[in-house]
Amino acid sequence: MAGVDHLATERSKACFDVEEMKVVWAGSRHTLELSDRISRLVASDPAFRKDNRAMLSRKDLFKNTLRKATYAWKRIIELRLSEEEASKLRFYVDEPAFTDLHWGMFVPAIKGQGTEEQQQKWLPLAYKMQIIGCYAQTELGHGSNVQGLETTATFDPQTDEFIIHSPTLTSSKWWPGGLGKVSTHALVYARLITAGQDYGVHGFIVQLRSLDDHLPLPGITVGDIGMKFGSGAYNTMDNGVLRLDHVRIPRDQMLMRVSQVTREGKFVQSNVPRQLVYGTMVYVRQTIVADASCALSRAVCIATRYSAVRRQFGSQNGGVETQVIDYKTQQSRLFPLLASAYAFRFVGEWLKWLYTDVTQRLQASDFSTLPEAHACTAGLKSLTTTATADGIEECRKLCGGHGYLCSSGLPELFSVYVPACTYEGDNIVLLLQVARFLMKTVSQLGSGKQPVGTTAYMGRVEHLMQCRSTVQKADDWLKPSVILEAFEARSARMSVARAQNLAKFANPEEGFLELSADLVEAAVAHCQLIVVSKFIEKLQQDIPGKGVKEQLEILCNIYALFILHKHVGDFLSTGCITPKQASLANDQLRSLYSQVRPNAIALVDAFNYTDHYLGSVLGRYDGNVYPKLYEEAWKDPLNDSVVPDGYGEYIRPLLKQQLHNARL
Amino acid sequence: MAGVDHLATERSKACFDVEEMKVVWAGSRHTLELSDRISRLVASDPAFRKDNRAMLSRKDLFKNTLRKATYAWKRIIELRLSEEEASKLRFYVDEPAFTDLHWGMFVPAIKGQGTEEQQQKWLPLAYKMQIIGCYAQTELGHGSNVQGLETTATFDPQTDEFIIHSPTLTSSKWWPGGLGKVSTHALVYARLITAGQDYGVHGFIVQLRSLDDHLPLPGITVGDIGMKFGSGAYNTMDNGVLRLDHVRIPRDQMLMRVSQVTREGKFVQSNVPRQLVYGTMVYVRQTIVADASCALSRAVCIATRYSAVRRQFGSQNGGVETQVIDYKTQQSRLFPLLASAYAFRFVGEWLKWLYTDVTQRLQASDFSTLPEAHACTAGLKSLTTTATADGIEECRKLCGGHGYLCSSGLPELFSVYVPACTYEGDNIVLLLQVARFLMKTVSQLGSGKQPVGTTAYMGRVEHLMQCRSTVQKADDWLKPSVILEAFEARSARMSVARAQNLAKFANPEEGFLELSADLVEAAVAHCQLIVVSKFIEKLQQDIPGKGVKEQLEILCNIYALFILHKHVGDFLSTGCITPKQASLANDQLRSLYSQVRPNAIALVDAFNYTDHYLGSVLGRYDGNVYPKLYEEAWKDPLNDSVVPDGYGEYIRPLLKQQLHNARL
Repeated sequence: MAGVDHLATERSKACFDVEEMKVVWAGSRHTLELSDRISRLVASDPAFRKDNRAMLSRKDLFKNTLRKATYAWKRIIELRLSEEEASKLRFYVDEPAFTDLHWGMFVPAIKGQGTEEQQQKWLPLAYKMQIIGCYAQTELGHGSNVQGLETTATFDPQTDEFIIHSPTLTSSKWWPGGLGKVSTHALVYARLITAGQDYGVHGFIVQLRSLDDHLPLPGITVGDIGMKFGSGAYNTMDNGVLRLDHVRIPRDQMLMRVSQVTREGKFVQSNVPRQLVYGTMVYVRQTIVADASCALSRAVCIATRYSAVRRQFGSQNGGVETQVIDYKTQQSRLFPLLASAYAFRFVGEWLKWLYTDVTQRLQASDFSTLPEAHACTAGLKSLTTTATADGIEECRKLCGGHGYLCSSGLPELFSVYVPACTYEGDNIVLLLQVARFLMKTVSQLGSGKQPVGTTAYMGRVEHLMQCRSTVQKADDWLKPSVILEAFEARSARMSVARAQNLAKFANPEEGFLELSADLVEAAVAHCQLIVVSKFIEKLQQDIPGKGVKEQLEILCNIYALFILHKHVGDFLSTGCITPKQASLANDQLRSLYSQVRPNAIALVDAFNYTDHYLGSVLGRYDGNVYPKLYEEAWKDPLNDSVVPDGYGEYIRPLLKQQLHNARL
Repeated sequence: MAGVDHLATERSKACFDVEEMKVVWAGSRHTLELSDRISRLVASDPAFRKDNRAMLSRKDLFKNTLRKATYAWKRIIELRLSEEEASKLRFYVDEPAFTDLHWGMFVPAIKGQGTEEQQQKWLPLAYKMQIIGCYAQTELGHGSNVQGLETTATFDPQTDEFIIHSPTLTSSKWWPGGLGKVSTHALVYARLITAGQDYGVHGFIVQLRSLDDHLPLPGITVGDIGMKFGSGAYNTMDNGVLRLDHVRIPRDQMLMRVSQVTREGKFVQSNVPRQLVYGTMVYVRQTIVADASCALSRAVCIATRYSAVRRQFGSQNGGVETQVIDYKTQQSRLFPLLASAYAFRFVGEWLKWLYTDVTQRLQASDFSTLPEAHACTAGLKSLTTTATADGIEECRKLCGGHGYLCSSGLPELFSVYVPACTYEGDNIVLLLQVARFLMKTVSQLGSGKQPVGTTAYMGRVEHLMQCRSTVQKADDWLKPSVILEAFEARSARMSVARAQNLAKFANPEEGFLELSADLVEAAVAHCQLIVVSKFIEKLQQDIPGKGVKEQLEILCNIYALFILHKHVGDFLSTGCITPKQASLANDQLRSLYSQVRPNAIALVDAFNYTDHYLGSVLGRYDGNVYPKLYEEAWKDPLNDSVVPDGYGEYIRPLLKQQLHNARL
């Protein structure tokens, strides 16, 4: 069977240019070429094997991760990879490791929050990995509420040092990746106290372990916080706990770009705007949205390919059964996720642009778009990660029973992905921030201040409050303007209605708390509009390649009409559309599913994932699923012996009715 | 801190009799007493320790399960436990094991499908566990579609034997629990072939392993299918693969209660009605619904207690922060799940009654209610397992980051639960069966044939098609009659609309396939109505205890109005309620959340779960979460040494820039 492509017939059905779609997905021909090259490099190197992860004990798993991370670094040096290539290599190694935090949090934080001097001192060490850093912010008792952190950094003017201390059990640092076993240094976030006054939370560089023997330095208690969700998954990471008992660090290890403490212990704000922090947040969340489209597209790729391989029911007289991808119930669950993967990809691309835009404005001291950009990234982080986590699990279910096997790759993908819903801002807390911004926007509508960016549509609120959808037949739902107006009207009306309800409360803060669940719904409506509108904007670009644009139009319509169908209550209760129009949207959706069906395999091929990266027997490129599933099974340690360990002690005494003397 | 109840204040807020609620939850005082006694027996026995499960390798985990299962059996014999007590004991041991299939599938199948003679031969062996049996139905390439199984059982009249054979790779038996390593016997489902004719799928008792040395018998290839979702979780079970190479068994090992093969090889149907099979299905699905309420209530108990312990934001001037259970966003996600746990409990209780009723009717050859009972159990299995799987994950997210730790118990609860959405009927396939039944019911409405049981409301279709909700103020939504009518009208109108759409197709089967996604929605609406109406019926019973009935009324209303809010599109598009009435329902829901808030802890205490059974640091009865989380962390194998294994080989060469010679 080797070499046979069981999905060749499926591939031949596609009516668009897959190679051009790969470019669209990658973002550019350059990125496609680079990703392709690096992913094949990783896939072809046995040192990066990952199919045994689920079977390894915690210790073996972790040790293996140390090996891979160091080996990856060695290859990066040997091959003289660029920063972009190195980052892609780590991406395709596809295993959470201390390096993620070192490169993704420690280095950027020093860059963003350190002075020139501090950067010159610490960055070269970090760039060469002569020190390994992590980001120690959250505490055992304090997550989302950063201002509630308990760790203290008290300035001692006598020695010119800060004393970093964990005053309580709940102030133990808890969760930071790379902290538990590997990092030599940590950026510790602590309440700055000087001259008896508390100046809130600031960052401090604290050395944790000796660079000679890796032993924790005096006053430092550090360890791993234990097993996490799933086998393999995030258990490759040493998320850690840290207690600091009056640990002294030099004054110049406080990150002082924004605020300083002088030799005399005076707290000083620099003229660097504090808003810079939001720039970093926009950056981090932008990468999270990009990751969401990756994770979702992986799951969709697996589920789509296996849905074309798998057959069930529908045969007459013992003939071949129907491919499950031909069932409407399967299509109506799978294709919206395929469309979502593309939608998130494009909104992620746009966020990348937004980050550049925000950065340029910040440098020019233009803070005008910052609140909008901040709300928008918060909302999109929440929307895309929630949909992706749910979507991965849905893909697993779409694979039937076999999706439950680790060899399907889906259990680990889910387990490793779900923390994205919590870290960098709990998804519900983020939506409340969006809602707060929306309420503010609505309240200022009368004031003449024009809403900007993704809230610009609110400027047309009068029209949006009274417009009626013009849809008369199913095809009308294919018009971008029709879709956009429906989504804008829904969002505007929901926000305005919430604002009116809030106005009934004497105490606005109390009202906000009381109505928060409703406010979250308005925030979701606004964020879904952003995703839809950015997809539509993408389609207004010049997209070459036979049939590529047409396929994307179909996916865009599927995404929009799927969301409309799912939240039809919003559209109906606000009177944006009629029940008849909702029903037409549903008819159109069914027709779109039929159009995407022959292209489904090619649309997931366009993600250009190697079998190594996918890590799924069900998602194999060649569709040769069953022999490989069978083969994989025998690798389980339980199959090392025909008669299992424990037979003599437990099974035999049971069968032979000899339990009285058995040692159990 | 030992012995302090950190949730005592919460418990003192309850305004109902918790002890009486425990009786309601358990179903009877007898069951409560029994469950309480057995759960404490298990919890207090160190042999049943389970907190280390996530850290064990597959082999150690499995061996440990063998030990526990055998030890449990020893205790059952020593303590002379009744069948009911033994089954409770296995339940509280809380670990999937081969015994589940032996007692839950093998024994019942022999009882249900075996002749008197066969029962007399095999049951005593099984009762004493002198043989261990499993249920080998699904195949590598065939799950839901039982009629598509490929394994053959060909009668050989020369030797009076059946030849059981796996003709293809995809016909390998795949998934049966207990098959991989333990079972001595299997009920193998295979296509019966005699005299060259295929008589479809029947059950055969096949011995797999020698009773002397446990080695597979000639012609039998058997093993474990490998790691499954999660750490611990279902990996305690030896789900297996089985290939049969012309394995011969005596003719009398075909289960012959319903059909027989004579000595001459003639296929004969007995006069025992084939419908008996449906009786078994009703039984199995009834237990699945009961399990759903257990699993969901466990997750809800953990999330509710931790939501009362955890504080976040909301403090002014460094004061104590707000308990997260006081946030409306938390309440609007948590309390509907609490209500669902109770709702599923009561509908499960009712299904138990339904099973008795169906059995009695079958014995009297009354098959009239069978299709309705079958559709109803299929639908409720689907509804409750989907909601429970989603609900457990939601509870995990409601615990913030700490829900991601294995010590929270939630990752394993999720991983071990989700297969319920697939086994015993894929949830979407089941809903299509319900839809088919609903369409038939609608089509017969004109014929004078009165719909029965849970579809009786369809008999009032004329009224339901044109009635309008009378709700004028939020309180009106508290009336059971108002809620019931809205749910009945929604379901009836959705079914009728689908039936009308189906009628437009020349080929009804084609129409059914094309509209299947819509049909699933109608099936869901019908099933939700059943859950709501059974909750309301429960409340019409005499329920003693101060405030108990009032609390249940609140939960019933929360369940109904939450479902209404979630599916408000259905209610609005069918014109059952107006947008204004939907908004009033939402207002009422918020008010109900406030009412349940002070009782939340007591309502989860009423489940009467031991800390052992819950298996969650976050869900501890005494709320002493943080010290225990901290303590648990240090038990991870990674913390065995301060400097991790792999430091010398991988971390040190990295830090010291000595990678050129490193062995990686």
